[in-house]
Amino acid sequence: MSFSPLTSRLIEALTCLPGVGPKSAQRMALHLLDRDRNGGEKLAQTLQLAMDNIGRCQRCRNFSESEVCQTCTQTSRDASLLCVVETPADVIALDQSGGFRGYYFLLLGHLSPIDGIGPEEIGAPLLDQRLAEGEVKEMVIATGTTVEGEATAHYLSEMARRHGVVASRIAHGVPMGGDLEYVDSNTLSLALKGRKRLE
Amino acid sequence: MSFSPLTSRLIEALTCLPGVGPKSAQRMALHLLDRDRNGGEKLAQTLQLAMDNIGRCQRCRNFSESEVCQTCTQTSRDASLLCVVETPADVIALDQSGGFRGYYFLLLGHLSPIDGIGPEEIGAPLLDQRLAEGEVKEMVIATGTTVEGEATAHYLSEMARRHGVVASRIAHGVPMGGDLEYVDSNTLSLALKGRKRLE
Repeated sequence: MSFSPLTSRLIEALTCLPGVGPKSAQRMALHLLDRDRNGGEKLAQTLQLAMDNIGRCQRCRNFSESEVCQTCTQTSRDASLLCVVETPADVIALDQSGGFRGYYFLLLGHLSPIDGIGPEEIGAPLLDQRLAEGEVKEMVIATGTTVEGEATAHYLSEMARRHGVVASRIAHGVPMGGDLEYVDSNTLSLALKGRKRLE
Repeated sequence: MSFSPLTSRLIEALTCLPGVGPKSAQRMALHLLDRDRNGGEKLAQTLQLAMDNIGRCQRCRNFSESEVCQTCTQTSRDASLLCVVETPADVIALDQSGGFRGYYFLLLGHLSPIDGIGPEEIGAPLLDQRLAEGEVKEMVIATGTTVEGEATAHYLSEMARRHGVVASRIAHGVPMGGDLEYVDSNTLSLALKGRKRLE
């Protein structure tokens, strides 16, 4: 005895979501069938629409249903600043901080030769072309602090140099409100190296 | 700055899933868009199909895309035994245990007057009709051990009595392999009350 064939197929299909195993998928399927048919209908339609229509922005590579995304069409931004990040979530986080008013470029990953992710995969040709346009004066590199993130940052700074563009890296250090004793030693060492003279 | 309108709608729609908040929904949406378009397509279609076609079995009230579910059409089962459970997941658990070969009836909840869940909502009229058919000789009540589950069990046993059907309750006690010191006192008290003489 098991669930009806269609219920089983729904449970199976739900496991494509990250962090959802067979048990959670079962709970989700039963919840939708039992208590939220409207939500399920809406999810099905929105999902179909999203899968069919969302592509990449031709300028920054962020997800967008139009050829050029909303952010890239905003003229209020400073075109001399370009921030290079790994993921769409990074863009949201940086923009919400309010500390950056330029444009963004998404790598959608980082260089990782072992996984077959080279310059092509992270959109290097498109970025190269963008820098060649000559509008960008400073490229803020905000890739992760992993080994791959650092290697990618190095690769990007070389590219910026070729175009005569200033490359900068966001600062790493102790988070605001962070107690020193709870900060890991790598971060502390970076924070010490990056110390600033008080005026 | 935020996600594109359609991406935001997808994130919003995903929060209808139980246990999924805005952050998890964002992670799910980006995962599907970035790495699993096929999975997303399949989920959208299966979900639509499931919402449109899955209803209730007319005999046991379990989810089914046919009028009568697979379990109720199996003739190999013992028609004199009817097990009453709260949820579809309970049916799976009991059936997988291999300890029961009769038919099932689903309450899809338990009596809870404060939430407006009365006999109608738990399908009492349908169960009444089933018992009136005269085939069922024993009704195994497997509702939860909560206060509401016990009250529901009491209500059901009264119904069984009216039809001259034997009502039984699944045993509560120490789980197999359970160390006494880790079993809660209510369960221990039930286990003591339900003790059996060794032959």
